[in-house]
Amino acid sequence: MAAIKTNPGNFFEDFHIGQEIQHAVPRTVTEGDAALYIGLTGSRFALSSADSFAQNVGLPGATIDDMLAFHMVFGRTVADISLNAVANLGYAAGRFGVPIYPGDSLTARSTVIGLKENSNHETGIVYVHSVGLNQADEVVLDYVRWVMVRKRDRLAPSPEALVPQLPEKVAMADLEVPLDLDLSGYDTVLAGSPYLWEDYAVGEKIDHVDGMTLEESDHMIATRLYQNNAKVHFNQHTEGQGRFGRRLIYGGHIISLARALSFNGLANAFRVAAINGGRHVNPSFAGDTIYAWSEVLEKGELPDRRDVGALRLRTIATKDLACGDHPGPDSTGKYPENVVLDLDYTVLMKRRG
Amino acid sequence: MAAIKTNPGNFFEDFHIGQEIQHAVPRTVTEGDAALYIGLTGSRFALSSADSFAQNVGLPGATIDDMLAFHMVFGRTVADISLNAVANLGYAAGRFGVPIYPGDSLTARSTVIGLKENSNHETGIVYVHSVGLNQADEVVLDYVRWVMVRKRDRLAPSPEALVPQLPEKVAMADLEVPLDLDLSGYDTVLAGSPYLWEDYAVGEKIDHVDGMTLEESDHMIATRLYQNNAKVHFNQHTEGQGRFGRRLIYGGHIISLARALSFNGLANAFRVAAINGGRHVNPSFAGDTIYAWSEVLEKGELPDRRDVGALRLRTIATKDLACGDHPGPDSTGKYPENVVLDLDYTVLMKRRG
Amino acid sequence: MAAIKTNPGNFFEDFHIGQEIQHAVPRTVTEGDAALYIGLTGSRFALSSADSFAQNVGLPGATIDDMLAFHMVFGRTVADISLNAVANLGYAAGRFGVPIYPGDSLTARSTVIGLKENSNHETGIVYVHSVGLNQADEVVLDYVRWVMVRKRDRLAPSPEALVPQLPEKVAMADLEVPLDLDLSGYDTVLAGSPYLWEDYAVGEKIDHVDGMTLEESDHMIATRLYQNNAKVHFNQHTEGQGRFGRRLIYGGHIISLARALSFNGLANAFRVAAINGGRHVNPSFAGDTIYAWSEVLEKGELPDRRDVGALRLRTIATKDLACGDHPGPDSTGKYPENVVLDLDYTVLMKRRG
Repeated sequence: MAAIKTNPGNFFEDFHIGQEIQHAVPRTVTEGDAALYIGLTGSRFALSSADSFAQNVGLPGATIDDMLAFHMVFGRTVADISLNAVANLGYAAGRFGVPIYPGDSLTARSTVIGLKENSNHETGIVYVHSVGLNQADEVVLDYVRWVMVRKRDRLAPSPEALVPQLPEKVAMADLEVPLDLDLSGYDTVLAGSPYLWEDYAVGEKIDHVDGMTLEESDHMIATRLYQNNAKVHFNQHTEGQGRFGRRLIYGGHIISLARALSFNGLANAFRVAAINGGRHVNPSFAGDTIYAWSEVLEKGELPDRRDVGALRLRTIATKDLACGDHPGPDSTGKYPENVVLDLDYTVLMKRRG
Repeated sequence: MAAIKTNPGNFFEDFHIGQEIQHAVPRTVTEGDAALYIGLTGSRFALSSADSFAQNVGLPGATIDDMLAFHMVFGRTVADISLNAVANLGYAAGRFGVPIYPGDSLTARSTVIGLKENSNHETGIVYVHSVGLNQADEVVLDYVRWVMVRKRDRLAPSPEALVPQLPEKVAMADLEVPLDLDLSGYDTVLAGSPYLWEDYAVGEKIDHVDGMTLEESDHMIATRLYQNNAKVHFNQHTEGQGRFGRRLIYGGHIISLARALSFNGLANAFRVAAINGGRHVNPSFAGDTIYAWSEVLEKGELPDRRDVGALRLRTIATKDLACGDHPGPDSTGKYPENVVLDLDYTVLMKRRG
Repeated sequence: MAAIKTNPGNFFEDFHIGQEIQHAVPRTVTEGDAALYIGLTGSRFALSSADSFAQNVGLPGATIDDMLAFHMVFGRTVADISLNAVANLGYAAGRFGVPIYPGDSLTARSTVIGLKENSNHETGIVYVHSVGLNQADEVVLDYVRWVMVRKRDRLAPSPEALVPQLPEKVAMADLEVPLDLDLSGYDTVLAGSPYLWEDYAVGEKIDHVDGMTLEESDHMIATRLYQNNAKVHFNQHTEGQGRFGRRLIYGGHIISLARALSFNGLANAFRVAAINGGRHVNPSFAGDTIYAWSEVLEKGELPDRRDVGALRLRTIATKDLACGDHPGPDSTGKYPENVVLDLDYTVLMKRRG
């Protein structure tokens, strides 16, 4: 009899420490993807909006939005890592390398760096270090994520637990500034805000004010664009019978909306340099309206640069809840149900110099 | 304490006559935008559909649809001009300059040319002359629009009223025909209609027959694509509590649909050369089906051209009302609630020569 | 009085045997179209996903997805052939020629090859042979389809019936393999499956497992992208009063979803070479979830090729019905209402060589 030709995805017992996975399918990211990303998120960061702006700061042309690059790399990994995932638990140690430009072709590979079976023997946690590469094999992004994955067989033996030690954040000294970037030609009027690195204070909180309502077509087009094929986002026929009764929105779409909304208050944060950590603390669905606010966690100088500084930010996204009061976890660390994302990341911002 | 970093938009008292505003964010318009525009509107005008067609009439390749260019320029201006607008009241003196091609980067700036406070002291009317430029600083579009803007403070002093004198229309002699355009290779079969400039009569009315139903995703993707960030189009959480209980559709999306529908009857109107005037006379919402009809207001010859003529058109768009009876304002100038757009514009059309 | 300028479409009596129709409007297919197609279907076939993958098999870059090429050609023909169609009855003898790349400009023309009036004198069946060409006049696709078209006048005389003899399938020897294709550099890991031509057996059935829920925006954006202007897909105002009370989804969108879903089980079917036959056996609507399964009907070798083989497939798509039981017509040939598509086509697949 012929072998089953469909991909069942990996179950918990299919992973082992040190396992290297080359992911299908390579993806050329184009001006078409960039346009659609703006159409789906409303992003306005100038460096990914206009060739002219990018060329004025020493780059060959508009870069692919950093979060779009993230989703394209992430999308490659889903069929191997998270097709049988119950939950996407967290991110750490995400570092952006060389920028992506239209025409670049991305591949991704992952290494299993941690495994821990849950006490119920039904699921386990898999930690992977994933790397996205361009056609010249330059790193465009690497990050760790951990997911809770089903076991195929409850009785399969448990691997020795190994939980990797993950950094709380990417060190300022390890951030990559795009080669050739020269902000002497940076125009703050065109960028959309007069506020530069010097103007932000640690502890400052910014309500990004605007809200964006989610639609089924929007999140499905976005998630398909990244070729992320996790079933829960697409199939109302089965999800209607599932835990939520609805299609679950890809958490990365919420990250993108939060980043796009953050333009209003952080317009000069021209580049995401690191994702220090992040959690999708509640699910989002079509009909929800996403808001966001940010806190400045840390300010850092960068080696040999007077024109660029770094801001470590915490951006919290909510649903159906404006962010004037900066909603977040309570004193016990518990999140109210209107909070959907808690993201710790580092951006590059223009300095007065 | 740190300054508020978010953009509150300008209120009526923030504007003064002669004020020059350089708008953020520049935007490179690409083949991606062109594809998405066709996907959102169904536009079929040949000059923006095929490089081969455009090259046969002397141009380097397919042009960016004129209305897409309009929305891209308009989108730049929103954060400065109309973030606190109650209503977008009208357009005048819109003139298209050099065509836009994929890869061109647009910027926009505006000059305040009129101000008039309303008697309630709550709002005032702001008239701006906006100009869109390409990366070579050539004018791609300039137009006047006026909007009703909220006052921040009811007690702020009223400026001296100045209402600019606006032309009823752009003069035929002032229309720009793209340099190098040569219609000797124009193929009416490929363009989709045998009817040329000579075949249209002043007073002729054309029902464009087809209807297009609006969806929330469609209008939001379009409006985000233009980076138009007016809140009323995106936030159901607040709009649900507002005047209409629903997200309001960007009036420009209705203009685009009306223009796309007008292909059926005006296929050889290959270029929009002017927007003489226009009003969004009623709001549109998701679920509405848009129809359109046009009347030929005027025919004009163009200096030194035997291959191209101009038609001044009035296109009226409706919702949930077919246009066989040419619905429009009644004898008192009042529009029935099914009429949403009354647009006066001038197109270039192939002549028999 | 001026002539009616709108296109009423052709009615049954407007067609005659041997009639040649050059269709409007030419269309340049771009990276923007390719991105949007992935966003609308989630397609992951590597040859249309990445330049790098395509270049490793001897091609200049990623090809435009074959089904996107089909829809672009089909879209040209609608205004002339099927604007007054009651039903799109079937396809036959579809053969893909040279691949399409971003930047290619497509035109289409059709020849009427069959006519048969129905006994009710209300409608008749029109058979057309349509050809899609690129800017170098190379054939990219040709196929036969037949549609049931309304008569304008019940009393118009009936033409002599001519039903063309159509092949059951495109012969293996007539399939075109893209020139320069050389699969020695084909990477099955990157392509997403280890299963090659040798691994598939005639009679083998593959449940593609995944499901995709249809949304109004998705199918309308897709259908507008192809500039297919058949009214039934777009106008809820009229369709709400029609036979189904809803907008009908373009059958080609279902074909695209079925092909995209078939990646899970047929990832190395890198190219569609022929559409042997196909029928939309039930309508689909927004809210339906599409599933698919395939049967291998035939395996073929190709002249002078050891690296590529052909698989003739039958793919059946369903709505709101998972395909583990391989649903299809009953013994009398009648389809249950959950089956929407029965497509017979031939793909090229990597051989072990």
